[in-house]
Amino acid sequence: MSTPTNTENRGSAVDVTDAAGARAEAKPEANRPATLPGTPDPSAVEDLAAVLDGNYADIKNGLRLFLNDPDLLPPVEGTLDELRAYNLGLVEKVAQAGRIQDSFSPLNGGKGQVAAGVSSLELLAQVNNSLCIKSGVQFGLWGGAVDALGTERHVEFARGAMDLSMLGCFAMTEIGHGSNVQHIETTATYDPETQEFIINSPNPGSKKAYIGNAARDGRWAAVFAQLHTPDSDESKGVHCFVVRIREDDGSPVEGVTTSDHGHKGGLLGVDNGMLEFDHVRVPRERLLNRFADVAEDGTYYSPIESPNRRFFTMLATLVRGRLGVGASAAGATRAGLAIAVKYANIRRQFEAETIGQESRLIDYRVHRRRLLIPLARSYALAAFQNQLLDRFQAQTNAISAGDWDQTNPTKEQDRASRETESLAAIFKSTASTHANRTLQECREACGGAGYMTENLLTTFRSDVDVFTTFEGDDTILRQLVGKNLLTAYSWDVAELSPFGMAKFVAGNIGDILTRRSGIAASVQSLQDRVTGTGSLFDAETQLRIVQTREEQVLNSLVRRVQVARKMERSEAAKVIDRSQDHLLEAAISYGDRMMVQAMLNAENSLPEGSSARQVYEQVRHLFVLDTIVRNADWYLDHNVLSGGRVKAAKAAINDLVDSLGPWSEVLVDAFKIPEVVLERPMMVNGGTDRS
Amino acid sequence: MSTPTNTENRGSAVDVTDAAGARAEAKPEANRPATLPGTPDPSAVEDLAAVLDGNYADIKNGLRLFLNDPDLLPPVEGTLDELRAYNLGLVEKVAQAGRIQDSFSPLNGGKGQVAAGVSSLELLAQVNNSLCIKSGVQFGLWGGAVDALGTERHVEFARGAMDLSMLGCFAMTEIGHGSNVQHIETTATYDPETQEFIINSPNPGSKKAYIGNAARDGRWAAVFAQLHTPDSDESKGVHCFVVRIREDDGSPVEGVTTSDHGHKGGLLGVDNGMLEFDHVRVPRERLLNRFADVAEDGTYYSPIESPNRRFFTMLATLVRGRLGVGASAAGATRAGLAIAVKYANIRRQFEAETIGQESRLIDYRVHRRRLLIPLARSYALAAFQNQLLDRFQAQTNAISAGDWDQTNPTKEQDRASRETESLAAIFKSTASTHANRTLQECREACGGAGYMTENLLTTFRSDVDVFTTFEGDDTILRQLVGKNLLTAYSWDVAELSPFGMAKFVAGNIGDILTRRSGIAASVQSLQDRVTGTGSLFDAETQLRIVQTREEQVLNSLVRRVQVARKMERSEAAKVIDRSQDHLLEAAISYGDRMMVQAMLNAENSLPEGSSARQVYEQVRHLFVLDTIVRNADWYLDHNVLSGGRVKAAKAAINDLVDSLGPWSEVLVDAFKIPEVVLERPMMVNGGTDRS
Repeated sequence: MSTPTNTENRGSAVDVTDAAGARAEAKPEANRPATLPGTPDPSAVEDLAAVLDGNYADIKNGLRLFLNDPDLLPPVEGTLDELRAYNLGLVEKVAQAGRIQDSFSPLNGGKGQVAAGVSSLELLAQVNNSLCIKSGVQFGLWGGAVDALGTERHVEFARGAMDLSMLGCFAMTEIGHGSNVQHIETTATYDPETQEFIINSPNPGSKKAYIGNAARDGRWAAVFAQLHTPDSDESKGVHCFVVRIREDDGSPVEGVTTSDHGHKGGLLGVDNGMLEFDHVRVPRERLLNRFADVAEDGTYYSPIESPNRRFFTMLATLVRGRLGVGASAAGATRAGLAIAVKYANIRRQFEAETIGQESRLIDYRVHRRRLLIPLARSYALAAFQNQLLDRFQAQTNAISAGDWDQTNPTKEQDRASRETESLAAIFKSTASTHANRTLQECREACGGAGYMTENLLTTFRSDVDVFTTFEGDDTILRQLVGKNLLTAYSWDVAELSPFGMAKFVAGNIGDILTRRSGIAASVQSLQDRVTGTGSLFDAETQLRIVQTREEQVLNSLVRRVQVARKMERSEAAKVIDRSQDHLLEAAISYGDRMMVQAMLNAENSLPEGSSARQVYEQVRHLFVLDTIVRNADWYLDHNVLSGGRVKAAKAAINDLVDSLGPWSEVLVDAFKIPEVVLERPMMVNGGTDRS
Repeated sequence: MSTPTNTENRGSAVDVTDAAGARAEAKPEANRPATLPGTPDPSAVEDLAAVLDGNYADIKNGLRLFLNDPDLLPPVEGTLDELRAYNLGLVEKVAQAGRIQDSFSPLNGGKGQVAAGVSSLELLAQVNNSLCIKSGVQFGLWGGAVDALGTERHVEFARGAMDLSMLGCFAMTEIGHGSNVQHIETTATYDPETQEFIINSPNPGSKKAYIGNAARDGRWAAVFAQLHTPDSDESKGVHCFVVRIREDDGSPVEGVTTSDHGHKGGLLGVDNGMLEFDHVRVPRERLLNRFADVAEDGTYYSPIESPNRRFFTMLATLVRGRLGVGASAAGATRAGLAIAVKYANIRRQFEAETIGQESRLIDYRVHRRRLLIPLARSYALAAFQNQLLDRFQAQTNAISAGDWDQTNPTKEQDRASRETESLAAIFKSTASTHANRTLQECREACGGAGYMTENLLTTFRSDVDVFTTFEGDDTILRQLVGKNLLTAYSWDVAELSPFGMAKFVAGNIGDILTRRSGIAASVQSLQDRVTGTGSLFDAETQLRIVQTREEQVLNSLVRRVQVARKMERSEAAKVIDRSQDHLLEAAISYGDRMMVQAMLNAENSLPEGSSARQVYEQVRHLFVLDTIVRNADWYLDHNVLSGGRVKAAKAAINDLVDSLGPWSEVLVDAFKIPEVVLERPMMVNGGTDRS
């Protein structure tokens, strides 16, 4: 039974034996990086921190001082009400620290500094994710909705969100419509007689659900609802209204039923609940009217004609939320990695062959692999995040400077904003998936000690669990990205049926396949910088390999979808449904390419010849080669890489974790995680104290 | 930039375009299974349940009645002390139900029915994992140690464990030695004058840690310690002693310090703590003396001469524990899958193209993939578990019948018990990894509702988290399996240095590569049953494909290791360390083969031509093809499968989830999860209720 069953196509790759180590027999790669010195250079920490912080070092360093406070850590125990009350107190500390509010627009007294919000969430997530998310709800979602969708009329609400005098909710999701926002059922019907909107939940499925701040603390809510005006039975689409949900003293408001989701799988300091409206009347001015308004007589007006485009323009406020969630996931992951890597550098287990005492965990290659490979991905995500934030900030600046009219953007702006939406979606889904996997790996890598709540890893893990769901389910977001790629960011396709989409794709193949760009314009210069020897360690080659996959996957998806144009509607729908896994693959490979590009961009900022640059380069190799090996079957199957090269990539991953092992603490020190987070009990009594 | 960078070896596989669906262009496979009827046959449930329950249907059905009790569910909230007290009350219910004690040997009043213990844990894990684990600690670990290592002398302790009059701990792990049991530091020094053992923790690293029942409820402990007798300074190795740790009223015992680990990442009903001994004296008779004894004058005696073999014979009691943990992980996973699959069959989201209402989640292929692929693996694990239990029960029976002398086994018995150890290790590690991944997938597949504690998924998930660590860290267990494979189950190698191991491997290649067998003897008949057309859907071909990988991975590992025999000791150690990932791969591919074999064996028990058999067959296809696709790069790289065949396997997975979709509820109904577990709030108010 030792013979393979299949012999077709055996002539191709010589099946080299790997008995004496794969490297010896695989074709040697040019430009193999030298093994790093066994004694790390601690000065590399600051250089690496600089590249990780990107253009946001000042903001972050300011926050870090505030965050190094043991009171900010999540309490280990308590009743739900105690945990929530404590967490609210921490949000007050954040408000007093006064940086997160810089994300609001100048109109509302902020600085229009998106990064202040995103970086605050990222760093809060390194300490306490209940605090991070409750702050995100208050400042980013409730305050952010008012800031992004409101006008002069609503300054009082934005300021109330900023100074916590108005605690609020972001009431979009409905229990019957988790991901399908366009079809929520809450209604806002205009009554010209009283000049009020009547907010109503017509059926149980339309209850607002999983809403942060709704169960206990919220007094206000930004409520998304279908707008109806007297001129027509049809909805004008989803709009957002400011609605009081409790009196300031916490007593109920007539017509609003709040309820409590109670205990959740994590984020115990956040009070999620439901909201139900029974013909609640709010003044006409409570419509957040930046993109649409209703006149006193009930006349509807919007500078954006297409309802579809209007909807997506309003939803663009979600982009900032997704940036925040992705950054938080990334922050929590870095904190977990720092804990696990530091533990691996002190914890000893099993007698070593030569050193006369037990080896440290980091001395085992399997352990290096399980921590350093995800760590490399965290570096890649950090670069991606920074450049995405740069891009988003530039767009925000253009909007406030009046160079970019959201109600009437240029074609390029239009496309750019859709692309930013895609980038934020793939960033958020990549970061949250990575967070869950990595924090679990960190927990397991710390064994029984990792399971003790005092060591923080399980709390991080259960808190970030739901990051894969809220602010857009990861699978749905990847589909969104796939569809954006497939439709070349055309607005018109958003509402198309599968059949219509197939027709569109067939008619626009050229556009689709050429319209791919990067996070930032600077990427184009990359080719000038690198001389391509074709080695797996060449930057240009790495990018080409990853890009080839991205292109071919999209290509194959396009061809798969366009055949549907000749089918009946129901058959066409089936073809589209059956392309779902390809759609996801297209999105993921797009994200992979973005991260490789981002790392290459970031690397340029490190001094040539510095040890930080050498280390960063090896981290980049590790990330890229792991990305390639994850998809090895695709590369082999599509003949982009030979078996020998895949083997070489696998061997190189082992060499790289060996080389980076002694530098592992340097790599996590560069994350600049607040000390209080790293001072875990297992670091002192983890069995190494044999006094 | 659209050309691939690497063109070597491009001549091989024709790079077929997959535009019009991969299947059309990949070589069509023979014997493709027909799509199942769109309306499932509910009668298949009982047939499938029969194959899932194997020879243990009676035991399980008895337990199921007991388990369908809402009081057994994990409480949603409470202080640690409340949760622990409540859980202890539930353990009393389990004791009163009286089935779990059948696992004890007849000497102690049991029936020697291993399955009664393992199945109890498996089913408890479907309802409440804190209850499962606390029961496991009491009956399986504390009681099990006394039962397996003790003699007539210790009947009172075994009975005390069985009727809960003696709550106890299994005190093996030390804070400084999580996985390295052979080098624990607690000492038991014999004092001939008083005929007592002095139990002592010589340093902080020797504290017993993470011990269940230690923080609150335990009164006794089975303590593992290095045995010292007056004749020599050297330890006689690790032995087990019964030690009182608290008075019956809970007050402290002199010399024993107990402490509390407090809040953990899950299993909140289990009171884990530490134990420290300060020269605690216990009578000579408290040594569990089945495999070794100390005479009154201090003379040491054991029927097993080799200290190494003695150690591993005693550790063989861990095998039952690993079976229990694996079964529990598998049980919790099935419960999670049942919840998520049932939710997917009622929950609607997004408008469907044709049916005039929103589609159910199960109607989306991506959703079918995320649930049905792990579900198929759960079916495979169930088959593996049953047959492993059959094997273990047969060995237990042979031992009690006197046909198998543990102190002096035949060569075949010796090898068989090592193999059982390997099988239990790979079963436990596979099941616990699968549990964590799948329960997370289930949570995400239920969106926000899945994150609410009332819907049980997050509690299952955080409870099983540590299953990957306790009773043997999964990575260490996989290494153990790899080493067993590499040393052809030779006892002598257990203590060899890496250098010695390399020499051994070099001298025993023949043995290593031929000595591979299955779970049960019946497997050999498989080849008679199947005519091999070479199709991916042929049972024989499937087995051959998986087996080919297992053999070649082991082969390559052997050659990699044996080169080290000519090296210096420290160089040899490096080679072994660098083979760690191959060692893990060898273990995993061994486990994969076992599961394929187990499914094929199990399938035989289903009536030919029945719809259950048709369905089971497709589940087996799904499991096998997924296992192949997971390792697609290896198969391609080693030319075992062509690109076309891998494509065909991928396309077949999609076809299979489409075919099995309408049967998904049948598949989980066959798990026979207690109704109280499935009656989750999200099943009634998940947005489908639009009244």
